Amino acid sequence: MSIVIVGSLALDTIKTPFAKKEMILGGAATYASMSAAFFAKPCVVGVIGEDFPEDKIKLLESKGIDLAGVKKEKGKTFHWEGEYHYDMNSRSTLATDLNVFGDFNPEMPVAYRKMPYLFLANIQPDLQLKVLYSMTNRKFTLCDTMNYWIEHTKDTLIEVFKRVDAVVLNDSEVREFTGATNLITAAKKIKELGPKYVIIKRGEHGASIMGDGKYFVLGTYPVENVVDPTGAGDSFAGAFIGYVAKAGNTNWATLKKALAYANVVASYSVEDFSVDRLAKLSKKEIEGRIKEIKQMINF
Amino acid sequence: MSIVIVGSLALDTIKTPFAKKEMILGGAATYASMSAAFFAKPCVVGVIGEDFPEDKIKLLESKGIDLAGVKKEKGKTFHWEGEYHYDMNSRSTLATDLNVFGDFNPEMPVAYRKMPYLFLANIQPDLQLKVLYSMTNRKFTLCDTMNYWIEHTKDTLIEVFKRVDAVVLNDSEVREFTGATNLITAAKKIKELGPKYVIIKRGEHGASIMGDGKYFVLGTYPVENVVDPTGAGDSFAGAFIGYVAKAGNTNWATLKKALAYANVVASYSVEDFSVDRLAKLSKKEIEGRIKEIKQMINF
Repeated sequence: MSIVIVGSLALDTIKTPFAKKEMILGGAATYASMSAAFFAKPCVVGVIGEDFPEDKIKLLESKGIDLAGVKKEKGKTFHWEGEYHYDMNSRSTLATDLNVFGDFNPEMPVAYRKMPYLFLANIQPDLQLKVLYSMTNRKFTLCDTMNYWIEHTKDTLIEVFKRVDAVVLNDSEVREFTGATNLITAAKKIKELGPKYVIIKRGEHGASIMGDGKYFVLGTYPVENVVDPTGAGDSFAGAFIGYVAKAGNTNWATLKKALAYANVVASYSVEDFSVDRLAKLSKKEIEGRIKEIKQMINF
Repeated sequence: MSIVIVGSLALDTIKTPFAKKEMILGGAATYASMSAAFFAKPCVVGVIGEDFPEDKIKLLESKGIDLAGVKKEKGKTFHWEGEYHYDMNSRSTLATDLNVFGDFNPEMPVAYRKMPYLFLANIQPDLQLKVLYSMTNRKFTLCDTMNYWIEHTKDTLIEVFKRVDAVVLNDSEVREFTGATNLITAAKKIKELGPKYVIIKRGEHGASIMGDGKYFVLGTYPVENVVDPTGAGDSFAGAFIGYVAKAGNTNWATLKKALAYANVVASYSVEDFSVDRLAKLSKKEIEGRIKEIKQMINF
Protein backbone atom coordinates (compact mmCIF):
# COMPACT_ATOMS: atom_id res chain seq x y z
CA MET A 1 0.00 0.00 0.00
CA SER A 2 1.30 3.46 -0.87
CA ILE A 3 1.42 6.47 1.43
CA VAL A 4 1.94 10.03 0.33
CA ILE A 5 4.19 11.93 2.77
CA VAL A 6 4.44 15.67 2.33
CA GLY A 7 7.05 17.59 4.27
CA SER A 8 10.61 18.77 4.61
CA LEU A 9 13.83 17.15 3.56
CA ALA A 10 16.72 18.82 5.27
CA LEU A 11 20.39 18.84 6.06
CA ASP A 12 20.75 19.31 9.80
CA THR A 13 23.57 20.38 12.03
CA ILE A 14 23.05 18.85 15.45
CA LYS A 15 24.99 19.59 18.57
CA THR A 16 24.56 17.55 21.73
CA PRO A 17 26.62 17.70 24.94
CA PHE A 18 28.53 14.74 23.56
CA ALA A 19 29.03 15.36 19.83
CA LYS A 20 28.42 17.61 16.88
CA LYS A 21 27.34 16.43 13.44
CA GLU A 22 27.16 18.71 10.43
CA MET A 23 24.93 18.52 7.37
CA ILE A 24 23.37 15.20 8.28
CA LEU A 25 20.16 13.95 6.73
CA GLY A 26 17.09 15.43 8.42
CA GLY A 27 13.60 16.76 7.80
CA ALA A 28 10.18 15.54 8.81
CA ALA A 29 9.44 13.77 5.52
CA THR A 30 12.80 12.01 5.72
CA TYR A 31 12.26 10.58 9.20
CA ALA A 32 8.61 9.77 8.44
CA SER A 33 9.33 7.99 5.17
CA MET A 34 12.25 6.01 6.60
CA SER A 35 9.91 4.86 9.39
CA ALA A 36 6.86 4.22 7.20
CA ALA A 37 8.99 2.14 4.86
CA PHE A 38 9.08 -0.72 7.37
CA PHE A 39 5.39 -1.26 6.70
CA ALA A 40 4.38 0.22 3.33
CA LYS A 41 5.63 2.24 0.36
CA PRO A 42 6.21 5.93 1.15
CA CYS A 43 5.89 8.41 -1.74
CA VAL A 44 7.49 11.68 -0.77
CA VAL A 45 6.50 15.18 -1.84
CA GLY A 46 9.13 17.76 -0.98
CA VAL A 47 11.97 19.87 -2.24
CA ILE A 48 15.76 19.66 -2.07
CA GLY A 49 18.56 21.93 -3.24
CA GLU A 50 21.46 21.27 -5.53
CA ASP A 51 23.65 20.42 -2.54
CA PHE A 52 21.56 17.43 -1.48
CA PRO A 53 24.03 14.55 -1.56
CA GLU A 54 23.47 11.74 -4.01
CA ASP A 55 24.27 9.08 -1.39
CA LYS A 56 21.36 10.28 0.75
CA ILE A 57 19.02 9.95 -2.24
CA LYS A 58 20.35 6.44 -2.69
CA LEU A 59 19.78 5.61 0.98
CA LEU A 60 16.12 6.65 0.78
CA GLU A 61 15.60 4.78 -2.49
CA SER A 62 17.25 1.67 -1.08
CA LYS A 63 14.45 1.58 1.48
CA GLY A 64 11.82 1.52 -1.29
CA ILE A 65 10.95 5.19 -0.84
CA ASP A 66 9.52 6.78 -3.99
CA LEU A 67 11.00 10.24 -4.56
CA ALA A 68 9.06 11.15 -7.73
CA GLY A 69 7.43 13.98 -5.79
CA VAL A 70 10.70 15.48 -4.60
CA LYS A 71 11.81 18.42 -6.77
CA LYS A 72 15.39 19.57 -6.96
CA GLU A 73 15.53 23.37 -7.13
CA LYS A 74 18.33 25.82 -7.70
CA GLY A 75 19.84 26.80 -4.37
CA LYS A 76 20.54 25.08 -1.12
CA THR A 77 18.56 22.48 0.81
CA PHE A 78 16.66 23.48 3.94
CA HIS A 79 19.16 23.59 6.80
CA TRP A 80 18.28 23.40 10.48
CA GLU A 81 20.82 23.76 13.23
CA GLY A 82 19.95 22.86 16.79
CA GLU A 83 21.64 22.25 20.08
CA TYR A 84 20.40 19.83 22.70
CA HIS A 85 21.04 20.76 26.29
CA TYR A 86 22.49 18.47 28.88
CA ASP A 87 19.14 16.88 29.70
CA MET A 88 18.49 15.99 26.02
CA ASN A 89 14.85 16.95 26.60
CA SER A 90 15.19 20.62 25.68
CA ARG A 91 16.86 22.20 22.70
CA SER A 92 17.67 25.56 21.16
CA THR A 93 17.38 26.35 17.49
CA LEU A 94 20.63 27.95 16.40
CA ALA A 95 19.72 28.49 12.74
CA THR A 96 16.82 27.88 10.39
CA ASP A 97 17.89 28.44 6.79
CA LEU A 98 14.78 27.68 4.76
CA ASN A 99 16.62 28.02 1.42
CA VAL A 100 14.63 26.21 -1.31
CA PHE A 101 12.07 25.07 1.28
CA GLY A 102 11.03 28.72 1.71
CA ASP A 103 9.29 28.59 -1.67
CA PHE A 104 8.03 25.05 -1.31
CA ASN A 105 4.75 24.55 -3.11
CA PRO A 106 3.87 20.88 -3.17
CA GLU A 107 3.19 19.54 -6.65
CA MET A 108 1.56 16.19 -6.56
CA PRO A 109 2.55 13.69 -9.24
CA VAL A 110 -0.62 12.41 -10.94
CA ALA A 111 0.00 8.89 -9.66
CA TYR A 112 0.10 10.16 -6.06
CA ARG A 113 -3.30 11.87 -6.21
CA LYS A 114 -5.25 8.63 -6.05
CA MET A 115 -3.28 7.14 -3.19
CA PRO A 116 -5.34 6.21 -0.12
CA TYR A 117 -2.96 7.14 2.73
CA LEU A 118 -1.56 10.58 3.42
CA PHE A 119 0.71 12.03 6.08
CA LEU A 120 0.86 15.79 6.15
CA ALA A 121 4.04 16.49 8.09
CA ASN A 122 4.62 19.90 9.62
CA ILE A 123 4.40 22.50 6.83
CA GLN A 124 2.44 25.72 6.33
CA PRO A 125 -1.27 24.89 6.81
CA ASP A 126 -2.15 26.60 3.48
CA LEU A 127 0.01 24.05 1.71
CA GLN A 128 -1.51 21.22 3.73
CA LEU A 129 -4.94 22.37 2.52
CA LYS A 130 -3.73 22.49 -1.06
CA VAL A 131 -2.50 18.89 -0.80
CA LEU A 132 -5.78 17.78 0.74
CA TYR A 133 -7.75 19.29 -2.15
CA SER A 134 -5.55 17.56 -4.71
CA MET A 135 -6.02 14.05 -3.29
CA THR A 136 -9.12 12.36 -4.70
CA ASN A 137 -9.18 8.99 -3.00
CA ARG A 138 -8.14 9.49 0.60
CA LYS A 139 -8.86 6.68 3.01
CA PHE A 140 -6.86 7.88 6.01
CA THR A 141 -5.04 11.15 6.50
CA LEU A 142 -2.78 11.95 9.43
CA CYS A 143 -1.72 15.53 10.07
CA ASP A 144 1.06 17.11 12.12
CA THR A 145 1.86 20.76 12.78
CA MET A 146 4.00 22.89 15.13
CA ASN A 147 3.62 25.72 17.64
CA TYR A 148 4.51 28.37 15.04
CA TRP A 149 1.39 27.60 12.94
CA ILE A 150 -0.79 27.34 16.04
CA GLU A 151 0.32 30.85 16.98
CA HIS A 152 0.22 32.44 13.52
CA THR A 153 -2.28 30.64 11.29
CA LYS A 154 -4.65 28.89 13.62
CA ASP A 155 -7.73 29.53 11.44
CA THR A 156 -6.18 27.77 8.48
CA LEU A 157 -5.01 24.98 10.73
CA ILE A 158 -8.60 24.48 11.88
CA GLU A 159 -9.63 24.14 8.22
CA VAL A 160 -6.98 21.45 7.84
CA PHE A 161 -8.05 19.61 11.01
CA LYS A 162 -11.66 19.60 9.73
CA ARG A 163 -10.60 17.59 6.72
CA VAL A 164 -8.27 14.95 8.17
CA ASP A 165 -8.92 11.68 9.97
CA ALA A 166 -6.30 12.06 12.66
CA VAL A 167 -3.99 14.69 14.08
CA VAL A 168 -0.75 13.95 15.88
CA LEU A 169 0.52 16.59 18.30
CA ASN A 170 2.71 16.68 21.36
CA ASP A 171 1.31 17.53 24.78
CA SER A 172 2.38 21.17 24.76
CA GLU A 173 0.95 21.75 21.27
CA VAL A 174 -2.39 20.24 22.30
CA ARG A 175 -2.50 22.56 25.31
CA GLU A 176 -1.47 25.60 23.29
CA PHE A 177 -4.02 24.88 20.57
CA THR A 178 -6.97 24.43 22.93
CA GLY A 179 -6.09 26.48 25.99
CA ALA A 180 -7.02 23.41 28.06
CA THR A 181 -4.40 21.99 30.39
CA ASN A 182 -6.08 18.67 31.02
CA LEU A 183 -4.94 16.52 28.10
CA ILE A 184 -8.18 14.54 27.96
CA THR A 185 -10.23 17.73 27.78
CA ALA A 186 -7.80 19.15 25.20
CA ALA A 187 -8.02 16.04 23.02
CA LYS A 188 -11.81 16.21 23.10
CA LYS A 189 -11.73 19.85 22.04
CA ILE A 190 -9.61 19.04 19.01
CA LYS A 191 -11.84 16.10 18.12
CA GLU A 192 -14.80 18.49 18.08
CA LEU A 193 -13.14 20.37 15.22
CA GLY A 194 -13.44 17.35 12.96
CA PRO A 195 -10.69 14.73 13.19
CA LYS A 196 -11.94 11.34 14.31
CA TYR A 197 -8.73 10.61 16.18
CA VAL A 198 -6.39 12.71 18.29
CA ILE A 199 -2.94 11.31 18.99
CA ILE A 200 -0.88 12.92 21.73
CA LYS A 201 2.86 12.36 21.89
CA ARG A 202 4.05 12.59 25.49
CA GLY A 203 7.78 12.33 24.94
CA GLU A 204 9.42 9.99 27.42
CA HIS A 205 6.01 9.22 28.94
CA GLY A 206 4.60 7.59 25.81
CA ALA A 207 1.59 8.41 23.69
CA SER A 208 -2.19 8.17 23.62
CA ILE A 209 -4.97 8.07 21.05
CA MET A 210 -8.58 9.08 21.51
CA GLY A 211 -11.40 8.26 19.10
CA ASP A 212 -14.38 5.98 18.42
CA GLY A 213 -15.46 6.84 21.98
CA LYS A 214 -12.35 5.06 23.17
CA TYR A 215 -8.97 5.87 24.62
CA PHE A 216 -5.65 4.04 24.46
CA VAL A 217 -2.48 4.98 26.29
CA LEU A 218 0.96 3.42 26.08
CA GLY A 219 4.26 4.16 27.79
CA THR A 220 7.47 4.39 25.79
CA TYR A 221 9.95 1.64 25.47
CA PRO A 222 12.59 2.56 28.10
CA VAL A 223 15.52 3.96 26.12
CA GLU A 224 18.53 5.19 28.06
CA ASN A 225 20.85 5.69 25.15
CA VAL A 226 19.30 8.85 23.68
CA VAL A 227 21.89 10.10 21.19
CA ASP A 228 19.76 12.48 19.09
CA PRO A 229 16.06 13.11 19.72
CA THR A 230 15.63 14.94 16.38
CA GLY A 231 12.88 13.42 14.28
CA ALA A 232 11.42 11.21 17.01
CA GLY A 233 7.94 12.65 16.45
CA ASP A 234 8.23 12.31 12.68
CA SER A 235 9.43 8.73 13.02
CA PHE A 236 6.48 8.09 15.30
CA ALA A 237 4.01 9.53 12.79
CA GLY A 238 5.60 7.78 9.83
CA ALA A 239 5.50 4.38 11.52
CA PHE A 240 1.91 5.03 12.60
CA ILE A 241 0.59 5.73 9.11
CA GLY A 242 2.83 3.01 7.72
CA TYR A 243 1.26 0.43 9.98
CA VAL A 244 -2.26 1.64 9.15
CA ALA A 245 -1.51 1.42 5.41
CA LYS A 246 -0.13 -2.08 5.80
CA ALA A 247 -3.18 -3.22 7.79
CA GLY A 248 -5.46 -1.75 5.14
CA ASN A 249 -8.11 -0.76 7.66
CA THR A 250 -8.62 1.81 10.38
CA ASN A 251 -10.44 -0.12 13.05
CA TRP A 252 -9.58 0.47 16.69
CA ALA A 253 -7.44 -2.64 17.04
CA THR A 254 -5.33 -1.50 14.07
CA LEU A 255 -4.93 2.03 15.42
CA LYS A 256 -3.80 0.77 18.83
CA LYS A 257 -1.20 -1.48 17.22
CA ALA A 258 -0.13 1.39 14.96
CA LEU A 259 0.51 3.49 18.06
CA ALA A 260 2.60 0.72 19.59
CA TYR A 261 4.70 0.35 16.43
CA ALA A 262 5.03 4.13 16.27
CA ASN A 263 6.34 4.15 19.85
CA VAL A 264 8.85 1.41 19.10
CA VAL A 265 10.19 2.90 15.85
CA ALA A 266 10.59 6.28 17.58
CA SER A 267 12.43 4.57 20.44
CA TYR A 268 14.99 3.29 17.94
CA SER A 269 15.14 6.55 15.99
CA VAL A 270 16.68 8.48 18.91
CA GLU A 271 19.47 5.96 19.43
CA ASP A 272 21.72 7.53 16.82
CA PHE A 273 22.13 10.75 14.85
CA SER A 274 19.99 11.49 11.82
CA VAL A 275 18.27 8.39 10.41
CA ASP A 276 21.34 6.26 11.04
CA ARG A 277 19.62 3.89 13.47
CA LEU A 278 16.54 3.61 11.25
CA ALA A 279 18.78 2.81 8.29
CA LYS A 280 20.18 -0.19 10.15
CA LEU A 281 16.98 -1.21 11.90
CA SER A 282 15.45 -4.61 11.10
CA LYS A 283 11.82 -5.71 11.27
CA LYS A 284 12.94 -8.36 13.71
CA GLU A 285 14.25 -5.70 16.09
CA ILE A 286 10.95 -3.84 15.83
CA GLU A 287 9.00 -6.99 16.66
CA GLY A 288 11.37 -7.63 19.56
CA ARG A 289 10.51 -4.38 21.29
CA ILE A 290 6.81 -4.81 20.52
CA LYS A 291 6.96 -8.10 22.41
CA GLU A 292 8.87 -6.47 25.27
CA ILE A 293 6.36 -3.63 25.53
CA LYS A 294 3.49 -6.08 25.60
CA GLN A 295 5.08 -7.79 28.58
CA MET A 296 5.95 -4.47 30.16
CA ILE A 297 2.38 -3.19 30.27
CA ASN A 298 0.64 -6.43 31.12
CA PHE A 299 -0.69 -6.81 34.66
CA MET B 1 -2.81 -7.64 57.10
CA SER B 2 -1.69 -4.54 59.01
CA ILE B 3 0.35 -1.67 57.60
CA VAL B 4 2.11 0.97 59.64
CA ILE B 5 1.80 4.39 58.02
CA VAL B 6 3.95 7.19 59.44
CA GLY B 7 3.32 10.74 58.34
CA SER B 8 1.38 13.94 58.66
CA LEU B 9 -2.24 14.51 59.57
CA ALA B 10 -3.26 18.02 58.66
CA LEU B 11 -5.98 20.55 58.26
CA ASP B 12 -5.60 22.11 54.83
CA THR B 13 -6.89 25.25 53.25
CA ILE B 14 -7.14 24.71 49.51
CA LYS B 15 -7.86 27.29 46.91
CA THR B 16 -8.53 26.37 43.30
CA PRO B 17 -9.70 28.62 40.47
CA PHE B 18 -13.18 27.32 41.20
CA ALA B 19 -13.54 27.10 44.98
CA LYS B 20 -11.91 27.58 48.36
CA LYS B 21 -12.16 25.12 51.24
CA GLU B 22 -10.87 25.87 54.72
CA MET B 23 -9.56 23.52 57.38
CA ILE B 24 -10.37 20.36 55.47
CA LEU B 25 -8.84 17.02 56.31
CA GLY B 26 -5.38 16.59 54.78
CA GLY B 27 -1.91 15.21 55.39
CA ALA B 28 0.07 12.42 53.76
CA ALA B 29 -0.81 9.78 56.37
CA THR B 30 -4.49 10.68 56.05
CA TYR B 31 -4.64 10.20 52.28
CA ALA B 32 -2.41 7.12 52.44
CA SER B 33 -4.41 5.41 55.18
CA MET B 34 -7.78 6.19 53.57
CA SER B 35 -6.44 4.60 50.37
CA ALA B 36 -4.71 1.64 51.99
CA ALA B 37 -7.89 0.86 53.90
CA PHE B 38 -9.51 -0.52 50.74
CA PHE B 39 -7.08 -3.41 50.89
CA ALA B 40 -5.71 -3.87 54.43
CA LYS B 41 -5.66 -2.39 57.94
CA PRO B 42 -3.71 0.89 58.21
CA CYS B 43 -2.17 1.73 61.60
CA VAL B 44 -1.22 5.38 61.67
CA VAL B 45 1.65 7.02 63.51
CA GLY B 46 1.32 10.79 63.63
CA VAL B 47 0.37 13.79 65.68
CA ILE B 48 -2.66 16.06 65.83
CA GLY B 49 -3.50 19.19 67.81
CA GLU B 50 -6.37 19.92 70.12
CA ASP B 51 -8.32 21.48 67.25
CA PHE B 52 -8.48 18.27 65.26
CA PRO B 53 -12.23 17.69 64.80
CA GLU B 54 -13.81 14.64 66.34
CA ASP B 55 -15.85 13.90 63.21
CA LYS B 56 -12.64 13.52 61.19
CA ILE B 57 -11.34 11.00 63.74
CA LYS B 58 -14.63 9.15 63.38
CA LEU B 59 -14.37 9.17 59.59
CA LEU B 60 -10.91 7.57 59.72
CA GLU B 61 -11.99 5.01 62.30
CA SER B 62 -15.10 4.17 60.30
CA LYS B 63 -12.76 2.99 57.52
CA GLY B 64 -11.04 0.58 59.91
CA ILE B 65 -8.01 2.80 60.37
CA ASP B 66 -6.19 2.24 63.67
CA LEU B 67 -5.20 5.53 65.28
CA ALA B 68 -3.44 4.13 68.36
CA GLY B 69 -0.21 5.69 67.08
CA VAL B 70 -1.68 9.16 66.68
CA LYS B 71 -0.86 11.42 69.61
CA LYS B 72 -2.90 14.47 70.45
CA GLU B 73 -0.64 17.29 71.64
CA LYS B 74 -1.31 20.70 73.09
CA GLY B 75 -1.54 23.23 70.30
CA LYS B 76 -2.85 23.28 66.78
CA THR B 77 -2.78 20.65 64.07
CA PHE B 78 -0.38 21.02 61.15
CA HIS B 79 -1.96 23.43 58.68
CA TRP B 80 -1.06 23.72 55.02
CA GLU B 81 -2.54 26.30 52.72
CA GLY B 82 -2.10 26.05 48.99
CA GLU B 83 -3.47 27.53 45.83
CA TYR B 84 -3.80 25.67 42.56
CA HIS B 85 -3.36 27.71 39.42
CA TYR B 86 -5.66 27.65 36.49
CA ASP B 87 -4.03 24.59 34.94
CA MET B 88 -4.44 22.55 38.17
CA ASN B 89 -0.98 21.12 37.51
CA SER B 90 0.99 23.75 39.39
CA ARG B 91 0.42 25.18 42.83
CA SER B 92 1.78 27.74 45.26
CA THR B 93 2.16 27.16 48.97
CA LEU B 94 0.56 30.10 50.78
CA ALA B 95 1.25 28.94 54.33
CA THR B 96 2.89 26.04 56.15
CA ASP B 97 2.07 26.17 59.87
CA LEU B 98 3.81 23.12 61.29
CA ASN B 99 2.29 23.63 64.78
CA VAL B 100 2.40 20.32 66.73
CA PHE B 101 3.90 18.59 63.68
CA GLY B 102 7.05 20.69 64.15
CA ASP B 103 7.99 18.59 67.18
CA PHE B 104 6.74 15.33 65.76
CA ASN B 105 8.79 12.41 67.03
CA PRO B 106 7.14 9.16 66.05
CA GLU B 107 6.49 6.85 68.97
CA MET B 108 5.64 3.37 67.86
CA PRO B 109 3.02 1.48 69.84
CA VAL B 110 4.50 -1.90 70.82
CA ALA B 111 1.92 -3.74 68.74
CA TYR B 112 3.00 -1.80 65.63
CA ARG B 113 6.67 -2.74 65.89
CA LYS B 114 6.14 -6.29 64.69
CA MET B 115 3.95 -5.38 61.76
CA PRO B 116 5.23 -6.54 58.36
CA TYR B 117 4.28 -3.62 56.11
CA LEU B 118 5.43 -0.05 56.47
CA PHE B 119 4.86 3.14 54.54
CA LEU B 120 7.14 6.02 55.46
CA ALA B 121 5.33 9.03 54.10
CA ASN B 122 7.16 12.30 53.59
CA ILE B 123 8.71 13.32 56.93
CA GLN B 124 12.21 14.30 58.05
CA PRO B 125 14.59 11.48 57.02
CA ASP B 126 16.03 11.29 60.57
CA LEU B 127 12.59 10.32 61.82
CA GLN B 128 12.15 7.84 58.98
CA LEU B 129 15.41 6.20 60.11
CA LYS B 130 14.20 6.10 63.70
CA VAL B 131 11.02 4.31 62.62
CA LEU B 132 12.99 1.84 60.53
CA TYR B 133 15.17 0.94 63.53
CA SER B 134 12.14 0.38 65.73
CA MET B 135 10.43 -2.09 63.41
CA THR B 136 11.59 -5.66 64.00
CA ASN B 137 9.68 -7.71 61.48
CA ARG B 138 9.55 -5.74 58.26
CA LYS B 139 8.56 -7.61 55.13
CA PHE B 140 8.05 -4.67 52.76
CA THR B 141 8.77 -1.00 53.33
CA LEU B 142 7.82 1.78 50.96
CA CYS B 143 9.32 5.23 51.38
CA ASP B 144 8.37 8.68 50.10
CA THR B 145 10.13 12.03 50.51
CA MET B 146 10.07 15.53 49.02
CA ASN B 147 12.38 18.02 47.31
CA TYR B 148 13.12 19.83 50.60
CA TRP B 149 14.84 16.75 52.11
CA ILE B 150 16.64 16.00 48.85
CA GLU B 151 18.08 19.50 48.97
CA HIS B 152 18.85 19.69 52.70
CA THR B 153 19.44 16.21 54.13
CA LYS B 154 20.37 14.05 51.19
CA ASP B 155 22.93 12.01 53.15
CA THR B 156 20.35 10.93 55.69
CA LEU B 157 17.89 10.21 52.91
CA ILE B 158 20.44 7.89 51.32
CA GLU B 159 20.69 6.03 54.66
CA VAL B 160 16.90 5.63 54.56
CA PHE B 161 16.87 4.46 50.94
CA LYS B 162 19.51 1.83 51.81
CA ARG B 163 17.13 0.23 54.28
CA VAL B 164 13.81 0.17 52.43
CA ASP B 165 12.42 -2.15 49.77
CA ALA B 166 10.90 0.50 47.54
CA VAL B 167 10.92 4.23 47.09
CA VAL B 168 8.15 6.21 45.48
CA LEU B 169 9.06 9.58 43.98
CA ASN B 170 7.72 11.84 41.30
CA ASP B 171 9.65 12.46 38.09
CA SER B 172 11.12 15.80 39.16
CA GLU B 173 12.26 14.39 42.53
CA VAL B 174 13.97 11.45 40.81
CA ARG B 175 15.82 13.86 38.53
CA GLU B 176 16.74 16.20 41.37
CA PHE B 177 17.99 13.35 43.53
CA THR B 178 20.19 11.77 40.87
CA GLY B 179 21.11 14.62 38.56
CA ALA B 180 20.09 12.35 35.68
CA THR B 181 17.40 13.59 33.32
CA ASN B 182 16.64 10.27 31.67
CA LEU B 183 14.13 8.65 34.03
CA ILE B 184 15.36 5.13 33.33
CA THR B 185 18.93 6.12 34.15
CA ALA B 186 17.72 8.00 37.22
CA ALA B 187 15.70 5.02 38.48
CA LYS B 188 18.74 2.77 38.09
CA LYS B 189 20.88 5.21 40.07
CA ILE B 190 18.44 5.15 42.96
CA LYS B 191 18.22 1.38 42.83
CA GLU B 192 22.01 1.23 43.20
CA LEU B 193 21.64 2.90 46.61
CA GLY B 194 19.75 -0.08 47.96
CA PRO B 195 16.00 -0.19 47.31
CA LYS B 196 14.93 -3.18 45.23
CA TYR B 197 12.18 -1.19 43.54
CA VAL B 198 11.91 2.38 42.29
CA ILE B 199 8.44 3.71 41.60
CA ILE B 200 8.14 6.93 39.59
CA LYS B 201 4.92 8.93 39.67
CA ARG B 202 4.50 10.78 36.37
CA GLY B 203 1.40 12.80 37.21
CA GLU B 204 -1.11 12.79 34.37
CA HIS B 205 1.18 10.48 32.37
CA GLY B 206 0.94 7.57 34.81
CA ALA B 207 3.57 5.72 36.76
CA SER B 208 6.32 3.15 36.40
CA ILE B 209 8.14 0.64 38.57
CA MET B 210 11.60 -0.79 38.04
CA GLY B 211 13.02 -3.79 39.88
CA ASP B 212 13.81 -7.51 39.64
CA GLY B 213 15.51 -6.65 36.34
CA LYS B 214 12.10 -5.67 35.04
CA TYR B 215 10.17 -2.55 34.19
CA PHE B 216 6.45 -1.84 34.16
CA VAL B 217 4.77 1.33 32.98
CA LEU B 218 1.13 2.30 33.09
CA GLY B 219 -0.80 5.38 31.96
CA THR B 220 -3.29 7.05 34.26
CA TYR B 221 -6.98 6.53 34.08
CA PRO B 222 -8.17 9.56 32.05
CA VAL B 223 -9.71 11.91 34.61
CA GLU B 224 -11.06 15.22 33.36
CA ASN B 225 -12.81 16.28 36.52
CA VAL B 226 -9.77 17.22 38.61
CA VAL B 227 -11.21 19.11 41.60
CA ASP B 228 -8.28 18.96 44.02
CA PRO B 229 -4.98 17.24 43.23
CA THR B 230 -3.79 17.42 46.86
CA GLY B 231 -2.83 14.03 48.22
CA ALA B 232 -2.86 12.22 44.87
CA GLY B 233 0.67 10.93 45.45
CA ASP B 234 -0.12 9.84 49.02
CA SER B 235 -3.28 8.10 47.86
CA PHE B 236 -1.18 6.37 45.21
CA ALA B 237 1.39 5.19 47.76
CA GLY B 238 -1.24 4.13 50.29
CA ALA B 239 -3.14 2.05 47.76
CA PHE B 240 0.14 0.53 46.55
CA ILE B 241 1.26 -0.72 49.96
CA GLY B 242 -2.32 -1.64 50.80
CA TYR B 243 -2.53 -3.91 47.78
CA VAL B 244 0.86 -5.48 48.56
CA ALA B 245 -0.20 -6.14 52.17
CA LYS B 246 -3.44 -7.72 51.02
CA ALA B 247 -1.64 -9.94 48.50
CA GLY B 248 0.80 -11.01 51.22
CA ASN B 249 3.69 -11.30 48.79
CA THR B 250 5.98 -9.04 46.80
CA ASN B 251 6.42 -10.90 43.57
CA TRP B 252 6.48 -8.96 40.32
CA ALA B 253 2.88 -9.79 39.37
CA THR B 254 1.70 -8.41 42.72
CA LEU B 255 3.76 -5.23 42.41
CA LYS B 256 2.42 -4.54 38.90
CA LYS B 257 -1.15 -4.96 40.11
CA ALA B 258 -0.39 -2.79 43.13
CA LEU B 259 0.75 -0.04 40.77
CA ALA B 260 -2.46 -0.34 38.77
CA TYR B 261 -4.60 -0.11 41.91
CA ALA B 262 -2.49 2.82 43.10
CA ASN B 263 -3.16 4.59 39.79
CA VAL B 264 -6.88 3.99 40.04
CA VAL B 265 -7.28 5.06 43.66
CA ALA B 266 -5.29 8.24 42.93
CA SER B 267 -7.51 8.91 39.92
CA TYR B 268 -10.53 8.93 42.24
CA SER B 269 -8.77 10.89 44.98
CA VAL B 270 -8.44 14.04 42.84
CA GLU B 271 -12.13 14.12 41.94
CA ASP B 272 -13.12 15.99 45.09
CA PHE B 273 -11.59 18.07 47.87
CA SER B 274 -9.77 16.44 50.76
CA VAL B 275 -10.54 12.74 51.14
CA ASP B 276 -14.19 13.28 50.26
CA ARG B 277 -14.12 11.12 47.14
CA LEU B 278 -12.15 8.38 48.90
CA ALA B 279 -14.66 8.43 51.74
CA LYS B 280 -17.46 7.60 49.30
CA LEU B 281 -15.47 5.32 47.05
CA SER B 282 -16.51 1.66 46.76
CA LYS B 283 -14.41 -1.39 45.97
CA LYS B 284 -16.71 -1.97 43.03
CA GLU B 285 -15.82 1.42 41.58
CA ILE B 286 -12.12 0.62 41.99
CA GLU B 287 -12.54 -2.69 40.18
CA GLY B 288 -14.50 -0.87 37.47
CA ARG B 289 -11.60 1.41 36.57
CA ILE B 290 -9.12 -1.46 36.84
CA LYS B 291 -11.14 -3.26 34.16
CA GLU B 292 -11.31 -0.12 32.05
CA ILE B 293 -7.56 0.43 32.30
CA LYS B 294 -6.89 -3.15 31.31
CA GLN B 295 -8.91 -2.60 28.15
CA MET B 296 -7.32 0.78 27.59
CA ILE B 297 -3.76 -0.51 27.47
CA ASN B 298 -4.38 -3.76 25.63
CA PHE B 299 -3.25 -3.93 22.02
